[in-house]
Amino acid sequence: MTAVPLSRLLLFIEEDAPFGDATTEAVLGDETCEARLRFREAGVAAGLAEASALFMHHGVSVTPFAADGDRVEAGAAVLQITGPARAILLVERTALNLVGRMAGIATATARFAALAREARPEVRVAATRKTAPGLRLLDKRAVVLGGGDPHRYTLSDAVLLKDNHLALVGIEEAVRRARAVSAYRVIEVEAETADEAVRAARAGAGIVMLDNMTPDGVKEALEALETAGLRDRVTVEASGGITEETIGAYAALGVDIISVGALTHSARALDVTLEVFAPQQAD
Amino acid sequence: MTAVPLSRLLLFIEEDAPFGDATTEAVLGDETCEARLRFREAGVAAGLAEASALFMHHGVSVTPFAADGDRVEAGAAVLQITGPARAILLVERTALNLVGRMAGIATATARFAALAREARPEVRVAATRKTAPGLRLLDKRAVVLGGGDPHRYTLSDAVLLKDNHLALVGIEEAVRRARAVSAYRVIEVEAETADEAVRAARAGAGIVMLDNMTPDGVKEALEALETAGLRDRVTVEASGGITEETIGAYAALGVDIISVGALTHSARALDVTLEVFAPQQAD
Amino acid sequence: MTAVPLSRLLLFIEEDAPFGDATTEAVLGDETCEARLRFREAGVAAGLAEASALFMHHGVSVTPFAADGDRVEAGAAVLQITGPARAILLVERTALNLVGRMAGIATATARFAALAREARPEVRVAATRKTAPGLRLLDKRAVVLGGGDPHRYTLSDAVLLKDNHLALVGIEEAVRRARAVSAYRVIEVEAETADEAVRAARAGAGIVMLDNMTPDGVKEALEALETAGLRDRVTVEASGGITEETIGAYAALGVDIISVGALTHSARALDVTLEVFAPQQAD
Amino acid sequence: MTAVPLSRLLLFIEEDAPFGDATTEAVLGDETCEARLRFREAGVAAGLAEASALFMHHGVSVTPFAADGDRVEAGAAVLQITGPARAILLVERTALNLVGRMAGIATATARFAALAREARPEVRVAATRKTAPGLRLLDKRAVVLGGGDPHRYTLSDAVLLKDNHLALVGIEEAVRRARAVSAYRVIEVEAETADEAVRAARAGAGIVMLDNMTPDGVKEALEALETAGLRDRVTVEASGGITEETIGAYAALGVDIISVGALTHSARALDVTLEVFAPQQAD
Amino acid sequence: MTAVPLSRLLLFIEEDAPFGDATTEAVLGDETCEARLRFREAGVAAGLAEASALFMHHGVSVTPFAADGDRVEAGAAVLQITGPARAILLVERTALNLVGRMAGIATATARFAALAREARPEVRVAATRKTAPGLRLLDKRAVVLGGGDPHRYTLSDAVLLKDNHLALVGIEEAVRRARAVSAYRVIEVEAETADEAVRAARAGAGIVMLDNMTPDGVKEALEALETAGLRDRVTVEASGGITEETIGAYAALGVDIISVGALTHSARALDVTLEVFAPQQAD
Amino acid sequence: MTAVPLSRLLLFIEEDAPFGDATTEAVLGDETCEARLRFREAGVAAGLAEASALFMHHGVSVTPFAADGDRVEAGAAVLQITGPARAILLVERTALNLVGRMAGIATATARFAALAREARPEVRVAATRKTAPGLRLLDKRAVVLGGGDPHRYTLSDAVLLKDNHLALVGIEEAVRRARAVSAYRVIEVEAETADEAVRAARAGAGIVMLDNMTPDGVKEALEALETAGLRDRVTVEASGGITEETIGAYAALGVDIISVGALTHSARALDVTLEVFAPQQAD
Repeated sequence: MTAVPLSRLLLFIEEDAPFGDATTEAVLGDETCEARLRFREAGVAAGLAEASALFMHHGVSVTPFAADGDRVEAGAAVLQITGPARAILLVERTALNLVGRMAGIATATARFAALAREARPEVRVAATRKTAPGLRLLDKRAVVLGGGDPHRYTLSDAVLLKDNHLALVGIEEAVRRARAVSAYRVIEVEAETADEAVRAARAGAGIVMLDNMTPDGVKEALEALETAGLRDRVTVEASGGITEETIGAYAALGVDIISVGALTHSARALDVTLEVFAPQQAD
Repeated sequence: MTAVPLSRLLLFIEEDAPFGDATTEAVLGDETCEARLRFREAGVAAGLAEASALFMHHGVSVTPFAADGDRVEAGAAVLQITGPARAILLVERTALNLVGRMAGIATATARFAALAREARPEVRVAATRKTAPGLRLLDKRAVVLGGGDPHRYTLSDAVLLKDNHLALVGIEEAVRRARAVSAYRVIEVEAETADEAVRAARAGAGIVMLDNMTPDGVKEALEALETAGLRDRVTVEASGGITEETIGAYAALGVDIISVGALTHSARALDVTLEVFAPQQAD
Repeated sequence: MTAVPLSRLLLFIEEDAPFGDATTEAVLGDETCEARLRFREAGVAAGLAEASALFMHHGVSVTPFAADGDRVEAGAAVLQITGPARAILLVERTALNLVGRMAGIATATARFAALAREARPEVRVAATRKTAPGLRLLDKRAVVLGGGDPHRYTLSDAVLLKDNHLALVGIEEAVRRARAVSAYRVIEVEAETADEAVRAARAGAGIVMLDNMTPDGVKEALEALETAGLRDRVTVEASGGITEETIGAYAALGVDIISVGALTHSARALDVTLEVFAPQQAD
Repeated sequence: MTAVPLSRLLLFIEEDAPFGDATTEAVLGDETCEARLRFREAGVAAGLAEASALFMHHGVSVTPFAADGDRVEAGAAVLQITGPARAILLVERTALNLVGRMAGIATATARFAALAREARPEVRVAATRKTAPGLRLLDKRAVVLGGGDPHRYTLSDAVLLKDNHLALVGIEEAVRRARAVSAYRVIEVEAETADEAVRAARAGAGIVMLDNMTPDGVKEALEALETAGLRDRVTVEASGGITEETIGAYAALGVDIISVGALTHSARALDVTLEVFAPQQAD
Repeated sequence: MTAVPLSRLLLFIEEDAPFGDATTEAVLGDETCEARLRFREAGVAAGLAEASALFMHHGVSVTPFAADGDRVEAGAAVLQITGPARAILLVERTALNLVGRMAGIATATARFAALAREARPEVRVAATRKTAPGLRLLDKRAVVLGGGDPHRYTLSDAVLLKDNHLALVGIEEAVRRARAVSAYRVIEVEAETADEAVRAARAGAGIVMLDNMTPDGVKEALEALETAGLRDRVTVEASGGITEETIGAYAALGVDIISVGALTHSARALDVTLEVFAPQQAD
Repeated sequence: MTAVPLSRLLLFIEEDAPFGDATTEAVLGDETCEARLRFREAGVAAGLAEASALFMHHGVSVTPFAADGDRVEAGAAVLQITGPARAILLVERTALNLVGRMAGIATATARFAALAREARPEVRVAATRKTAPGLRLLDKRAVVLGGGDPHRYTLSDAVLLKDNHLALVGIEEAVRRARAVSAYRVIEVEAETADEAVRAARAGAGIVMLDNMTPDGVKEALEALETAGLRDRVTVEASGGITEETIGAYAALGVDIISVGALTHSARALDVTLEVFAPQQAD
């Protein structure tokens, strides 16, 4: 995904300084200063494109030491920043909030993905739609930068048949109806039993989501698909309450994808800071 | 704070369903159904006003069992919902994302506040500006519902003199300049030593923030203010890396307010769910 | 797809009457009147939900005689409208522009689809991204109401590998890279020869687009897929300059979907009118 | 009219790529490429300013071979484009949709105008308010580029008294009321008979619209105006269902302006294409 | 003009209470109260429709004692208001700012118009484009409610040839070019001498603006137009620095319209107040 | 406060020229010209940053002779402007409206402030929330440029307890509740008697507003505060109907701040003009 559009980023500045920066405007004049955006803990860089765009829009020059998606060591500087002190301090918190949240999500994604791959190298980790309201693009982009699969973006771009949908019409009829609407959307079915998984795959679902199953349940479902000769016809996703502790176990069972809502709904911000060097009077 | 305006909440629906809900529209017709928004874990309710407004805008009726700010038991239902299945499923995820995030923040705030009050009943917990970009109103409102102080909302509405501001002009001059701009904004000064705390209070700061100090440093600063006869002239805020483990120790020292960035920048979403009862064919 | 949100429809009214309706406000007072939205030619109804929402928002009551998606005879009234003359005349043109455009697209879609199905009942007609700028939702919704497949909505929600993408990396590698990004997006490959079609299907594309091929070329590609045992593994779309005259020939060859840019980029508006009965002085 | 503001054009890109370009981002890296925007059929250039602004905003350089309003031969290139392949492919469809629609309208306008002028050189062709919803500026600008009169832009900027307005108050009183509101708006009256045309001109209308009249009816109205000595006091517009086939006949009768809704409500997009030369690895 | 759309009015509330009403929310609960919007000085009512819409949107009921455009006595109540105290106090200032500004403009317009009509009953007073930025609709609507002519709304809806335009091309050529663009916009020419006025009228201008002329200059221009037999072919507008003291003199000379920038650019707000009766505990 | 964001300023241009500048586009080509923004009367510069940003965005170069906040003599030029005549004339009125309004407010603020300081040098003048709807930022910024205190920006950023709030709960309880919500907002209490002023100060209000008091009343309240030993604990603001004639008297009494609604609600625009030198054909 490309970076978040500047027009949207500027709204974040307006949110943080609707009537300007009371402090800086009272105290500072036209001093210039240097600053460094630094990671206080190791993680995956994300949001640097957005932060840089904001600084540059405000007349601040930026030299990057890292790019979004890079692994960054604890203590490393990622952006070198030079320009008017007023502009740097105006943008500071918004930039840190962006990088902190996005790098937090990217880093968590990378950590879950590494744990899964350790158990079985082919397994992928995916996000869900459990993102902060209004921040879908930002959150999904961070997941991609962390090496995750963004999953569907919205209710419009893929079909996911859940128990509520299946309560009225059976799996087979539901898949048939979804296919009849459009051939351009992946069809996924939530299965709660091995039998449902098999029925979904047979009906033509592209992805079967094994929802809230124990590892034993997942194993059983995979075996049932295998037995029915359908295993290579569907992508199998495990979902529901999977944590750093349990992801390895699920990965080892042979699912293709493990989706984790916590990547975005409970992301801990990465600890990042802007080290500002003492402003100096402009000549 | 009043609830987030409906026009902004509707943008969250547009974000999640720019071209409608591909699944529901393919499978469901004009069935109606009932649903319950339930807390899977105990916490402080928040976002219920927003979720209710969204459901009602889409023609769904809502009966509340709890109000924002109430403590909710694990497993308790907070909203009873009745209406067209299509509308309920369209709003579901946005409502859950709103309630999950806001209740997560409110609950964390209440937990930090309880720990602080346990050590010393008068102490208050405050948020910071480390909110998710674009969600300042939502995040601050959740802090208030959790019993916290929202702190300043933006760079415009209070003065906070930090080391970068104080590098060029001394504390006294900085406070003087800030007061000269407006009498209607609280002036806070970040102090890194006991001496700076005393100078700030003497200069007329309304609030002194003891930033990133150890408990010993905080103690020393409070004693210095006491000795200088300035303790009752200022509100004292402790800030910087304070956790659930350490908040009690800081509270016990006698500060007035403890601010915690993690309330909003690393909020874990509360586990909430929408239990949908099988849709029924409308007559 | 659900109807276009009211907030967006109201922008159309603001576009047409930024400073009100100079004529009506000069001449009319508080008269009420009745009106009928009538189709002057036969077609598929579309935009009625949007037009009704606009009238109702302005205090006008609406009784529908047809629903979006219905076939309407030439001369038939579709909406009965009662309310303040000022409001009805204010909304008139916007409502007609919406219904005219959407019904025009829906009707063209239905006509193409009928021609295709006549040649072979299973064939479907799809739209493209050649919509009027800013009107993607409206145009795609009209296609769906006409019985067409909306195809992908945006560049984000499905992968379509074209010659420009394939110039640098081969088909196989391109498909592999696309699958590695996300399992939740359909992958389509544009093929210009039968050989490319086979390679695309073998590489795992979900859809193969036979682009700008003659009927003979399409036939050859379909046979090659059959021979390679891949025909049932992919959806085959024919695209490029297909008209009402030629769609039957393409349909008869056995493709699954025929996409037609003209449905939206050159839609002729359906001839619809608002018959206003002489305003009457309100009591 | 000046070109459509960039901020509005960027919304079209966001509409087409809310989460980026899934295909290009999966397959391409930092290659640069060249491209040519080419007209596949002859027409009047329009939308080139808008397309160029979009490409340039995305870091792509543009060399124009034609300007908006120019006649372009079939097969001619109008823009030479160089820059990052990702940016060019991101903007491609939006640029083509803009140019296709606007050039289609400009070309149709020029064609109608030529047919009218052939019959009588002084006659002008005008658009109506039958534009695509939300695209009034774009559509009207295209009409002007094609040599047409944009007619009124909105309900606010000119008075047009139609039968519905005249049903309650007579022509004379209606014109009087309209003049009493403002001297800065042209007053036009829709006439359905020669008598009404004369009354409207006598009452002081600046423009008389002969609505849905046969050529004979138009002729009769013009003669009646002449006889009454009012012909040079009003501009006479013929309107209603006039086509390429009939416009010459109407023009020959001596009206001043012929307005044609189909210019905008049923514009066929001009066939334009972006020829992309194989992307090359950036050094 | 119809009232300002609610969506725009709600932005004013968001401007005044981005994080709610700190005072009321701290102190009040669910009390209800009554209030009266009262004019402290006599004037023309304006903005009541807007204020009422805002109160009603917030669940407050409104009973009007006057309508926009009515003359109101000093001390008279214009709206009776009942509802939740929180809502009434939230909307209070925005409502008063709207009514104060609009009624101030409407009242000034009525005062200028009365002075002009006293000198010569047919003369009309018009506004200019010297409105507060972003408030064109509001300001023009207030002028109309005060009985003034709104003049052109924007640069797009009428032609006004000023000295800067006429410096390059003569009056005759400029008028010719303007007419060639569109027949649907009034053409006005600014004249600085009697000779220019005559040339403008002869060239076909619909309105001649006598700009910054002394009464003697105006008189001379009117006589020259009369002598040339052109007086009844044009509307004559006097403009430039005309005040309450001088408007009568200009009106008496026989111009048709006198435009006054001060109506909007220097409008004194009318003194209006919201009398709130002590909130009462809701049952 | 920093200047108003460009994105908001551009909306003012769109408001004034939704379909371009009909006059200039009809008459001018690609001429360039020079112009000077000149103050016709002496005043405080304001809005120059905004006007310059608008001109520069449209490709016009600007050389400033004065900066916002500077005193400008009658007749002095403040901006030298060079660029395309079309762009200059497009921006002209919006720039003048911005500068006229803002400089008018800044100049009035400076005048009130000078009168107050003459009587007593320490006194400050403050604005209120009686700003034009939607122009809060612009109006407050102008006050600051004129040397005034902007007072609270919104209902959210400071507490102001008025009679309506105090009707239900006493002063002491109201202040206590407000303090309990947040320590980061100044608390002001409106007092109508000397006794209330003392109670407010004793309760801990940071600011006491003496509302609508006669000079005698203000004197009495100040003495009562003095007697109670509370005078140096609170900032005292006088407010309500204070004019240029009376401000000196209030200032002399010893209040700290005098707030004046008329600064913004009834600002007379400063008389500014754009002198355009005859456009010249570009080479």
